[in-house]
Amino acid sequence: MELQPHKQPNEQSLPKEESKDFAPLININGEILPAEQAKISVFDRGFLYGDSVYEVTRTYNNIPFLLEEHLERLWFSAQQISLNIPLSKKELTLEIKKTLKEVKFQNCYIRIIVTRGEGEIGLDPNLATKGNFILIVKEQKENPSWWYKKGVELIISNTLRNPVNSLDPNIKSGNYLNNLLAMIEAKKLGAFDAVMLNKEGYVTEGTTNNIWLVKGQNVFTPPLEVGILKGLTRTSLINICKQDQIPCFEESFLPEKLLDADEVFITSSTKEIVPVTKINGHKIADGEPGVISKKLLNSYRRFIVNSCYN
Amino acid sequence: MELQPHKQPNEQSLPKEESKDFAPLININGEILPAEQAKISVFDRGFLYGDSVYEVTRTYNNIPFLLEEHLERLWFSAQQISLNIPLSKKELTLEIKKTLKEVKFQNCYIRIIVTRGEGEIGLDPNLATKGNFILIVKEQKENPSWWYKKGVELIISNTLRNPVNSLDPNIKSGNYLNNLLAMIEAKKLGAFDAVMLNKEGYVTEGTTNNIWLVKGQNVFTPPLEVGILKGLTRTSLINICKQDQIPCFEESFLPEKLLDADEVFITSSTKEIVPVTKINGHKIADGEPGVISKKLLNSYRRFIVNSCYN
Repeated sequence: MELQPHKQPNEQSLPKEESKDFAPLININGEILPAEQAKISVFDRGFLYGDSVYEVTRTYNNIPFLLEEHLERLWFSAQQISLNIPLSKKELTLEIKKTLKEVKFQNCYIRIIVTRGEGEIGLDPNLATKGNFILIVKEQKENPSWWYKKGVELIISNTLRNPVNSLDPNIKSGNYLNNLLAMIEAKKLGAFDAVMLNKEGYVTEGTTNNIWLVKGQNVFTPPLEVGILKGLTRTSLINICKQDQIPCFEESFLPEKLLDADEVFITSSTKEIVPVTKINGHKIADGEPGVISKKLLNSYRRFIVNSCYN
Repeated sequence: MELQPHKQPNEQSLPKEESKDFAPLININGEILPAEQAKISVFDRGFLYGDSVYEVTRTYNNIPFLLEEHLERLWFSAQQISLNIPLSKKELTLEIKKTLKEVKFQNCYIRIIVTRGEGEIGLDPNLATKGNFILIVKEQKENPSWWYKKGVELIISNTLRNPVNSLDPNIKSGNYLNNLLAMIEAKKLGAFDAVMLNKEGYVTEGTTNNIWLVKGQNVFTPPLEVGILKGLTRTSLINICKQDQIPCFEESFLPEKLLDADEVFITSSTKEIVPVTKINGHKIADGEPGVISKKLLNSYRRFIVNSCYN
């Protein structure tokens, strides 16, 4: 049986002030605002230079999933670009909880953004005085069921992933044009997303997700050294493979190995585990979501249930 | 004689409402606002992803310098990331002039930003409906005279410039973390700015400027192929060299050639031509601004006078 921990409430159970409750709420430096009032200065360096770091998580059953791990990574990203986060992890957690209280949903999307703040225009980071934090909280709608039932199509993009010694993909920052260029290629070809390679030609990751393949009984995902984000769903899934006694390898591979795989899937906090059934117009195996992908999705959702529903 | 076309007005000639006139004015989609009211939505993709393009120019004698060329490049950058600019060049020029009219300065800094706009959060560019344009106009203060008299210090950064096949440095976008990481290195070492190399080890450019060296009577600057922005001051200066019969070569070179140069200088629209007298703590020649750099600055300022004051 497929668990569905993030099932939406049905129509009848919706609160009365429907539109208000569905609208996103934004917390800017502690002040909670509706979307239309949620604005930041054009002098904010997040706007001028993408000089910001961020995380995306979601709630299941009102509980922010893996929040500690997300905050840990936010602080890591900030440290990599010498950005001071203007509050402590404890304070930020309280701000998240304060904002969630105002939203009536069990399943929320949470985006946490911290910018270097405002100042005289100029690249010198010392021109900014104090960072700004922004929380965007909105309903996390259930992902389209066809993603899981039919699988999605990817392309291998011509845009190479940023190299580690230029802008490390392990920094989750406000600079997403590299990924966006790959996404634009995908959308032009009618695909769901793009897989990016590094300059040596190895597979790195999707534009906002990690990528995996199954060959025989073995699961493979690129190692951190190829230049990828250390995905939290990725880490969880490596552990789940261990528990489920599915051999899982962090190994570099070329795109040909994806095309020749028995199964391919992508992972992210909001997508969970989405099967990939086509790459560059080429069917993966029989073009149907594979059994190991499904098994792992079930195990992952059981992990969510154990974390948030017990 | 050193020309000073961007001389500040003296105290006596200042208009009465000093603070108001000194304050930046911001034009957001046609509406002119003071800085404290100039805000954009946190859902703007320029803020979320650095999904924007920009240009910086300045006025001399109330005339926006090389405006046509800047707009040409803005449209080029936008085209590279499939971003639709929501108005024509003519309309944008009128908006710039409209904003400049409200500012009482002869010498203004003008930042033109165009974002992909707002929409549902997600990397897919089709989620945004209509772009936003933002003009930031403020006083262009005279650059510190020591830059030109003493020269500035650079470092060779460990952060490599983004490769062309990841995010082309010739796209002037809202993604500046790569350059910012190099700038952070420079500031930690007390330097003015950083020179970035490409992955082959060749010199590319400064974080927001082009770089040049003089050896004997010859001037060298990296060619576009190493992965740099096609600077407008760079183009102007190549032409000036021709007119002044100074041999000028667009040639790849290693950082050693900078250290061993007779003169080094950097160029940008707002910096004009700034001599570099130290790199990585090592004096360039005798550690004083060189004669060819000075000669070129005079020729460049004469070019400005001819363009904007006649």
